[in-house]
Amino acid sequence: MGNIRVTNGGVTAAAGFEAAGACAGIKYKNRMDMALIYSTVPCKAAGTFTSNVVKAAPVLWDKDIVENSPYAQAVIVNAGIANAATGSQGMDHCRETAQTAGRLLNIPEQSVLIGSTGVIGKQLPIERIKSGIKMLVDAKTAAIEAGSTAAKAIMTTDTVSKEIAVSFETGGKTVTVGGMSKGSGMIHPNMCTMLAYITTDAAISRELLQEALSASVVDSYNMISVDGDTSTNDTCLVLANGLAGNDEITQKGEAYDKFCEALNYVNTYLAKKMAGDGEGATALLEVKVLNAPDKQKARILARSVTGSNLTKAAVYGHDANWGRILCALGYSGVQFDPQKVDISVESSAGSAMLCKNGMEADYSEEEATKILSEPEVTVIVDMKCGTEQAAAWGCDLTYDYVKINADYRS
Amino acid sequence: MGNIRVTNGGVTAAAGFEAAGACAGIKYKNRMDMALIYSTVPCKAAGTFTSNVVKAAPVLWDKDIVENSPYAQAVIVNAGIANAATGSQGMDHCRETAQTAGRLLNIPEQSVLIGSTGVIGKQLPIERIKSGIKMLVDAKTAAIEAGSTAAKAIMTTDTVSKEIAVSFETGGKTVTVGGMSKGSGMIHPNMCTMLAYITTDAAISRELLQEALSASVVDSYNMISVDGDTSTNDTCLVLANGLAGNDEITQKGEAYDKFCEALNYVNTYLAKKMAGDGEGATALLEVKVLNAPDKQKARILARSVTGSNLTKAAVYGHDANWGRILCALGYSGVQFDPQKVDISVESSAGSAMLCKNGMEADYSEEEATKILSEPEVTVIVDMKCGTEQAAAWGCDLTYDYVKINADYRS
Repeated sequence: MGNIRVTNGGVTAAAGFEAAGACAGIKYKNRMDMALIYSTVPCKAAGTFTSNVVKAAPVLWDKDIVENSPYAQAVIVNAGIANAATGSQGMDHCRETAQTAGRLLNIPEQSVLIGSTGVIGKQLPIERIKSGIKMLVDAKTAAIEAGSTAAKAIMTTDTVSKEIAVSFETGGKTVTVGGMSKGSGMIHPNMCTMLAYITTDAAISRELLQEALSASVVDSYNMISVDGDTSTNDTCLVLANGLAGNDEITQKGEAYDKFCEALNYVNTYLAKKMAGDGEGATALLEVKVLNAPDKQKARILARSVTGSNLTKAAVYGHDANWGRILCALGYSGVQFDPQKVDISVESSAGSAMLCKNGMEADYSEEEATKILSEPEVTVIVDMKCGTEQAAAWGCDLTYDYVKINADYRS
Repeated sequence: MGNIRVTNGGVTAAAGFEAAGACAGIKYKNRMDMALIYSTVPCKAAGTFTSNVVKAAPVLWDKDIVENSPYAQAVIVNAGIANAATGSQGMDHCRETAQTAGRLLNIPEQSVLIGSTGVIGKQLPIERIKSGIKMLVDAKTAAIEAGSTAAKAIMTTDTVSKEIAVSFETGGKTVTVGGMSKGSGMIHPNMCTMLAYITTDAAISRELLQEALSASVVDSYNMISVDGDTSTNDTCLVLANGLAGNDEITQKGEAYDKFCEALNYVNTYLAKKMAGDGEGATALLEVKVLNAPDKQKARILARSVTGSNLTKAAVYGHDANWGRILCALGYSGVQFDPQKVDISVESSAGSAMLCKNGMEADYSEEEATKILSEPEVTVIVDMKCGTEQAAAWGCDLTYDYVKINADYRS
């Protein structure tokens, strides 16, 4: 990250962005459950959405805005109810949400994006949503803290809020990219997982904004897995309002590369934060696959390990059960020679090679357990059948994951 | 099952089969951990094996016997160590096992099949294996109880042993098909899951025996899922010794159909028993997908639901969270219209429609919870976009699953 530096805040770090959180009483009592992101000027917007056949109403709404509306200027998010499997009434609720926000913010309803997260199959309490929008509009400010407030307001079973901002220089101007995300359960590859909202004051064409985002999600959000369940609501949006005053990025080159670097940094940071905050998780599990035959195979192998319940339960037990890792590589669908594979583990407590050429290496169980007892653990897999690599992130599988999801709805 | 009837026992139910169990001290103390199946005459053999790229040594050994040896006559199974990721020493151990058994049973080593289940990456204690074989050969009998003993001896984290036998008449002769299996964790579609051994006194050609087995595993073992992890050791073998005295089945027709019906009954029974005995499970979850566009899509949809951690945790919590079921259908990879889907649940406590045309139906949460509190729960999904159906079996996800797998190796 030679060109970029981490700065303060999240979605209000970039020039011209405001935010707010509100307690609207959607489902939770006595906590914020609605958020607003607002730009003082219209933005270019790009988005990536869930690959689930069952798409929530706000996903359909946002896809339409991103593809067909010239600009976007606000995002209204609620936690508690997903507005998924809600039929035409669900779409009506999106329209009412956008109309209400549009009227209060004095912008077209076609520039209001919407996000929902929570229980599937329940209708939104639309009057409470409308009251919430009023509160949000009244409360919005450009303060750095407003971004943090919004990041807290979109949490469901998340235990920590997730935000980050970075800056870089281009042509004498400072461009900032900030973002927030929520995501904890129901997280799996195949799309920009969960809700992530990125704001930037970069001036950039809509085409390049979409291209940068689509490329970035592949190695960030799509490489995290908590439980293998791809949600109906997964959404990642980027709003770019141009207020940094840089020459508009309309072609690939140095400025575009810097923008991509900043966007990747933000997305990867938020993705890892989500993986480490997996429901009930006690550890962030990083899996690096080295020397794979191609990039896509490296990704599939890495995700197969982060997706293995048996591996995740072993990490929870601090058990150096490398056989489960080798097994997960083996059922990934990628062909390879098991007798070439090396498997190591690494954390702040040290590193150890567990498996050499597909067989048990000479290691100390005690030391391996110590390495696996840290809150961030990396598994390094050397396939020795190529030159490509990929990283995936997940978490351990714990009693609390089961507890949270056995009780979630009630 | 008009043509077949359930009879007593398991692998020793068919004429000419003997079995035994022994405490060989492979890994467990004070419990049986080795089993023998033996036929007094040579058998035709058929097998299906794991699709995992990482194949355990006994899988490679058995594949070779099934494909290249004219007959098989015995199976030696050990629990505790998988003999997977053990390199050439692992293969040497298979050869020593077969040589020892062959010598003591006075049969060629190329007619000895081998099965192992347990920890990956450890070498077998081959001297204890050899002592175990001696005990097994000394103890073997044709008693019905000997089959039950063998079924107990191959258990690992299984809580109940699994065996079944059925008979049918053909041309005035009684043919029996019996079997046993073990399987609890690391269970997922894509192959004859875990270890299953079927014995029959049918006279049948090797080609038709293999064809019947391969067809049967698709809708039995391949439709169960406990945790999505496909093992390195999955094996299903059938031995047919011809002692029923029926005219050898050498072509398709009534006798072959009856044999397939009996084999399917045995395999489906054993598969469901494994699913219901998933590690830590408190409930058997059956998912029936109706009116899908084709058979394969029906299977994929059904397995996507039994494989969903969120759905499984909801079943454990007796929570009628149909949104997670719809969501799991949606990320299965099969295209469909979510607004046509109906979802019901059913058990001995009653039935209730939870979702009608992709939206919440009018049901009582209290009643739904009662239905979901039974030890066997069926989810019925009506896709309304075709005429094909499939069933899959899984279990709930519980604290105990995590506990078992966090501690398994130690």
